[in-house]
Amino acid sequence: MSYRVQFLPDGIEVTAEGSEDLVTLAARAGITLRGACGGAGTCGRCRVMVTGGRVTVGGEKKVAPLEVAACQTVPASDLRVEIPATARLEEHRVLLSARSAGRLGEEESRFPVDAPLFSQTSLQLERPSLDDPGDDLSRLLRALKEQDQGEVYVPLEVLRELPSVLRARDWAITVGYSGNKGRREILSVVPGTEPQPAFGVAIDVGTTTVAVELWDLVSGRRLADSGTFNRQAAFGDDVVTRIIYATEQPEGRRILQDAVVETVNGLLRQVLAAAQVAPDRVWAATFAGNTTMVHLLLGVEPRFIRLEPYTPAANEWPGLHAEDLGLAINPRAAVYVVPGVASYVGGDITAGIVATGLHRKEGITLFVDIGTNGEMVLGNRDWLVACACSAGPAFEGGGIRAGMRAVPGAIEEVTVLPGGYEVFLRTIGGKPPLGICGSGLISALNSLLAAGILERSGNFRRDAATPRLREGDGGPEFVLAWEKETGSGNPIALSQAEVENLVRAKAAVFAGVRTMLGTLGLDLTAVEEVYVAGGFGQHINIRDAVSIGLLPDLPPERYHFVGNTALKGAAAALVSAQARQEMAVVARSMTYLELSVGNRFMEEFTAALFLPHTNKELFPSLAGEG
Amino acid sequence: MSYRVQFLPDGIEVTAEGSEDLVTLAARAGITLRGACGGAGTCGRCRVMVTGGRVTVGGEKKVAPLEVAACQTVPASDLRVEIPATARLEEHRVLLSARSAGRLGEEESRFPVDAPLFSQTSLQLERPSLDDPGDDLSRLLRALKEQDQGEVYVPLEVLRELPSVLRARDWAITVGYSGNKGRREILSVVPGTEPQPAFGVAIDVGTTTVAVELWDLVSGRRLADSGTFNRQAAFGDDVVTRIIYATEQPEGRRILQDAVVETVNGLLRQVLAAAQVAPDRVWAATFAGNTTMVHLLLGVEPRFIRLEPYTPAANEWPGLHAEDLGLAINPRAAVYVVPGVASYVGGDITAGIVATGLHRKEGITLFVDIGTNGEMVLGNRDWLVACACSAGPAFEGGGIRAGMRAVPGAIEEVTVLPGGYEVFLRTIGGKPPLGICGSGLISALNSLLAAGILERSGNFRRDAATPRLREGDGGPEFVLAWEKETGSGNPIALSQAEVENLVRAKAAVFAGVRTMLGTLGLDLTAVEEVYVAGGFGQHINIRDAVSIGLLPDLPPERYHFVGNTALKGAAAALVSAQARQEMAVVARSMTYLELSVGNRFMEEFTAALFLPHTNKELFPSLAGEG
Repeated sequence: MSYRVQFLPDGIEVTAEGSEDLVTLAARAGITLRGACGGAGTCGRCRVMVTGGRVTVGGEKKVAPLEVAACQTVPASDLRVEIPATARLEEHRVLLSARSAGRLGEEESRFPVDAPLFSQTSLQLERPSLDDPGDDLSRLLRALKEQDQGEVYVPLEVLRELPSVLRARDWAITVGYSGNKGRREILSVVPGTEPQPAFGVAIDVGTTTVAVELWDLVSGRRLADSGTFNRQAAFGDDVVTRIIYATEQPEGRRILQDAVVETVNGLLRQVLAAAQVAPDRVWAATFAGNTTMVHLLLGVEPRFIRLEPYTPAANEWPGLHAEDLGLAINPRAAVYVVPGVASYVGGDITAGIVATGLHRKEGITLFVDIGTNGEMVLGNRDWLVACACSAGPAFEGGGIRAGMRAVPGAIEEVTVLPGGYEVFLRTIGGKPPLGICGSGLISALNSLLAAGILERSGNFRRDAATPRLREGDGGPEFVLAWEKETGSGNPIALSQAEVENLVRAKAAVFAGVRTMLGTLGLDLTAVEEVYVAGGFGQHINIRDAVSIGLLPDLPPERYHFVGNTALKGAAAALVSAQARQEMAVVARSMTYLELSVGNRFMEEFTAALFLPHTNKELFPSLAGEG
Repeated sequence: MSYRVQFLPDGIEVTAEGSEDLVTLAARAGITLRGACGGAGTCGRCRVMVTGGRVTVGGEKKVAPLEVAACQTVPASDLRVEIPATARLEEHRVLLSARSAGRLGEEESRFPVDAPLFSQTSLQLERPSLDDPGDDLSRLLRALKEQDQGEVYVPLEVLRELPSVLRARDWAITVGYSGNKGRREILSVVPGTEPQPAFGVAIDVGTTTVAVELWDLVSGRRLADSGTFNRQAAFGDDVVTRIIYATEQPEGRRILQDAVVETVNGLLRQVLAAAQVAPDRVWAATFAGNTTMVHLLLGVEPRFIRLEPYTPAANEWPGLHAEDLGLAINPRAAVYVVPGVASYVGGDITAGIVATGLHRKEGITLFVDIGTNGEMVLGNRDWLVACACSAGPAFEGGGIRAGMRAVPGAIEEVTVLPGGYEVFLRTIGGKPPLGICGSGLISALNSLLAAGILERSGNFRRDAATPRLREGDGGPEFVLAWEKETGSGNPIALSQAEVENLVRAKAAVFAGVRTMLGTLGLDLTAVEEVYVAGGFGQHINIRDAVSIGLLPDLPPERYHFVGNTALKGAAAALVSAQARQEMAVVARSMTYLELSVGNRFMEEFTAALFLPHTNKELFPSLAGEG
């Protein structure tokens, strides 16, 4: 049996064969549905309206109209399905280095275009003669050796056409090669001494978003960039859910690899079209991503990342070619993956350290990347220590009913007047509120605390005499926006349980920082600068974040937003051998602190489960407040 | 339009679409037709009978029955085509080392199974712990480094499953790697400390024939062998014709590569079936072939091999994988190609030198491989000089109307009684004669000379009063077998022009040997041993060959038949790193003497256009004869 399924309001129709669920069918229609639970049917993120037809939900036949979890629903007739905005993964503010140049400026320009991952060199070979009839390949290798002593590898594809290419312009040639991993591999040989047009792409593969930059490797200029959601998000919100999907679903690993490669290829097509560059001219690609994302991108078994002792398959990855991954560029293009440190401190962090130059500074710097996982690095030019804590998806809107990403309609700032009667909201794009994003949540916590609605323990003050504090389905909740004020017609409220989630998340980050400092016997005052990296970091108000105890209490001038440093680092690796060299050194020399070893982290975590902290002395600048 | 074409007597029918010729269609039916001219329509080898239907021959419509050159003929209706035995490339005595162990014995056993191209090593890795959570790949590399200092490469395919494999038997593993070209590349990692069954194949790719041996790489034993015609023979008899086909026909290079790979794969299927070995268990393959055959096997542009200054694309080939060539074994299997010396002295000769151990002997040895090309090496453990002459295909039956390969029915020995009235013939398999092969031609020349029918100049003695010497279509000819005596009903005769062909061929070989000796200032007596290699060498009578002046006049005990030394060398390379190392050294250190430079060769050649030679003093042992 095959059915026609129409998705609205997009108006796209697909044909359903067999037992594909609505998430799969929507994906075929180009619509990515949310799915925090990886298709388990427990998170309710993918709820859609079936407005016409019959379906099977968990084995049970049902008739429209009804609301269903798309991941549990299979068509039993032709269907009409409405997809509400809440179920849809939409384009949002994906951070690109061009737009997110933090206060540190365009750090990647610090790396000269010294030796792109794909470099070219022109040669005039000696013509053979009856006295010197040596073979073509030896002639090429001899000329290359005169330039450089390293080992050179010439693959069969190049060798096949070498005789004609050498003779096309009387033994004048331009050789394109990859300097990946020390071994010089010839990727192209063309006639003449003019370098051929050559381009490269730098790619940040995040759990949630993917961003790409296109560079001209001859001029050393950035030509275009683009970003979008990682299509893997349909299979789970965080790395753990994805690992479970990859290991427990049939073909799960392949499906996730395809999803991220399709995401990347879509972006590549965009930037190539924008800059009018043919895919075959792209000879190099660099990737920075967390350890799980890299495993899934490369199709490597990720199972043991989440099992003690948390061992990744690799931290340093072999040099690859585009065809190994199915990238929509020249199949022979060199692919470099920024090396990682451990299962939960990946190449995105290595890239960030090198892009910000933290590893060259004399003073001690704290690098914080708060996302679904919080990664933190402390160090200077002499030493580097890294740790990671599972902040959970709360700050990205996960585990919060009204949570959403930073797209138009998301509440990003909350002001609660004392007493809790009046609330002022600021939303992205000034639209009627649809939900609340990370910066809004931090702002809300801070404001509720200041207004006396929240106690320092994170409990609502039950005696607060405001109608906004009410008993909801899941216990006490504070209403940020009433039904009539929202874009969806549903109220936006924050429950006691959700607040506890947020408190645990901020406690994990703060405890991670404290544990690093404590292990090293350092006082917070030793930290001269704080770099706040990543998408989330762009939107938060530092004062709010300090006030709830998410970030340590340091003078605001020590804080710097550094933007998408993973992408900046990937771009540096694309154009600079020095950057690649520094990344190898940084990844190898960084000490990974496993927080689950010993009691210190748990003690710090427990102590941080207060707003801002059980020990108010840690937040001297807040003295007299709240 | 599509037509059905039935080939008889095989009874196989194929569908012809478009303008495919009968050679192509026969190939689709699995029938390989002869074709010395590469489809030019000039050699007449592929003549077949069209017994029903209409055809287009060279643009002209014709109606059956008629005899046509298959390469010039395209169906114009449904067809019936009879293929006579004379047009068909048949299985023949392909030389395998097992059968052709020359008087030097099983030389390849001289190479211990020291390090097969695919070797295995068992390791017990340290388990990771929270104190030592290093990644899986580093753990593997560390353990390998403790064994050996060389660079190790782990490809993505292996890395993908590494985490599961390491943990399957508690960190005990067996690593299979290739030692090709110094770089240790991991090809497989399996759980446990037992070596996995692993096999390798040694392949001799000759212009005319291809032979394969299957080896057990764990026990170091040879399991099976097989040989057949090179399917490329349908596109030309010699390397020059094939190069022209590859460069001038659309897709010619691809067609020739496919033909030889299909030939090899057919043999691989045979030996694997015979030994009951699964293709995926074959982890290594070695090839020895002349320079043109290697170019065509690898799909490398061969155009410049035949153009002055005769420069090959490469003499030393990069390490390859089975999937690069489409071999029907494990796609990741290591492929090693024996290095060559020059365009006309290839890896088959390098393999032959190392297999015979010539490069280790104190005394000077002459190595002669007479085929379509004659290759000769002179040297000892201190120096090696090689040259090649185009003997032409005469000794393999080319350019001789009755010429055929050494298959049943071929005349291999001729005795002409004085006066030339009576002739005794010996044929392979004792069958009625169908034609004459190389050893038969040498025997015939010698016998005609002895019987006084041939003058030393190579001219028939017109005054000989035998009816066997008659005026044929192409001038004077000597009838070896009358119509009624032959298997085909056609007479077998040798014409004046054909004799001249043979004289030129033998003169080229002899002049090559003399030129080498003369260039080095050596006398023939300095040559302590002569190794006669290759298929042709197996069948000839040394005394006959000396008598006509093909081989130099040395005592018979100095001559040794060494068999298929290309295959022996390929097998040595398969099991022994020492053999591969020696081949690299031999190929690099051998001095190639280009015979077309200077006058010496032409002078020697002209002087050798007599039977046995203009200078009878060079053949003292023949004094008093003829």
